[in-house]
Amino acid sequence: MPSYKLTYFDARGLGEAARLLFHLADVPFEDFRVSHDDGSWLKIKDSTPFGQTPVLYVDGQAIPQSAAINRYLAKKFGYAGKTAEEQAWADAIVDQFKDFFYVAMRPLIVAIRGGESEEAIAKIRKEVFLPGRDTYFKILNDILEKSKSGFLVGDGLTYADLSVADNLTTLEKNGLANLAEHPKLAALREKVYTQEKLKAWIASRPDTQF
Amino acid sequence: MPSYKLTYFDARGLGEAARLLFHLADVPFEDFRVSHDDGSWLKIKDSTPFGQTPVLYVDGQAIPQSAAINRYLAKKFGYAGKTAEEQAWADAIVDQFKDFFYVAMRPLIVAIRGGESEEAIAKIRKEVFLPGRDTYFKILNDILEKSKSGFLVGDGLTYADLSVADNLTTLEKNGLANLAEHPKLAALREKVYTQEKLKAWIASRPDTQF
Repeated sequence: MPSYKLTYFDARGLGEAARLLFHLADVPFEDFRVSHDDGSWLKIKDSTPFGQTPVLYVDGQAIPQSAAINRYLAKKFGYAGKTAEEQAWADAIVDQFKDFFYVAMRPLIVAIRGGESEEAIAKIRKEVFLPGRDTYFKILNDILEKSKSGFLVGDGLTYADLSVADNLTTLEKNGLANLAEHPKLAALREKVYTQEKLKAWIASRPDTQF
Repeated sequence: MPSYKLTYFDARGLGEAARLLFHLADVPFEDFRVSHDDGSWLKIKDSTPFGQTPVLYVDGQAIPQSAAINRYLAKKFGYAGKTAEEQAWADAIVDQFKDFFYVAMRPLIVAIRGGESEEAIAKIRKEVFLPGRDTYFKILNDILEKSKSGFLVGDGLTYADLSVADNLTTLEKNGLANLAEHPKLAALREKVYTQEKLKAWIASRPDTQF
């Protein structure tokens, strides 16, 4: 088996789906966490392919970009979708979050971190974030409505379920969604988090805001 | 062979890489173009999986999201990368453009379309767009520097080359880059556009701004 090292920040964020895939598949990996604060990120930044994290090192060979990493591992471990069409749908669902993040979530984060006024933040939340979130949640709900398995694609778990479930946690932890109001999404996350191979990790993983 | 229909706007944008893949592979498809102006987009919007284009219909079954569509076709037609690692790199390069688009290019487009002042547009161009473009171009240049084939991944053409080549055209057509200053990128585009199977399409396709 190759040696795997995942380099990312001490956050779930763009790195957690890969970690979940390793745990699901019972494949050992180095969970290497860098930080802005202690300089450990800047020390390795230039050695990464795109100057970004996450990076997955497979026997030392680097693979950048979170979705590419997750898809690579999902294919290796059997969580990419069972047919070409299922694979495309898993990919599409993962990319839909990226669109939602960039169009609706990032402007809010930028406003908050940029120290904008409470009024300006409230305006962005109302006019940009909430409509984007509601559109995104409707897409997920429509998919789950038609699902016979309770998973997002086909009759089994794919890496799309892992990404979506953990992104829902991030939204909830930051006061951006209340899953009690979205029972289908809550049920999906529960289904993911109670996978036998994931339970121990979910219970013991670092509790980070993002 | 299944029947393929690609629904997108009358633009290259997020639809052109799929069209290039069909032409490369000599596979017939319906190039269905909708418009905001004549209401044809609104008429079908609710029938699309995510309320967005592009959508690929394979024997009537819908696949949404451009990268998912392109990857699906690339796998079918043999342009997804030859190994698991090459596939991951093609995916990563395609996603890197998406990051660049959202972080650097979209704010400029939003400012221009939103009728911001010339001063405000110049500020965004200088402080957001140009640094983002230069970082993105450096990534592509670094990859091409090490490439023995002149392609972005491995020793042959992948769907990443198609996406990148056509995105370069969009940047140039909109005064956002001058490829004469980036010979490696210009050479990559030339290599793509002069593929025997693409020449006729490139010469005859609708000449759109985006």
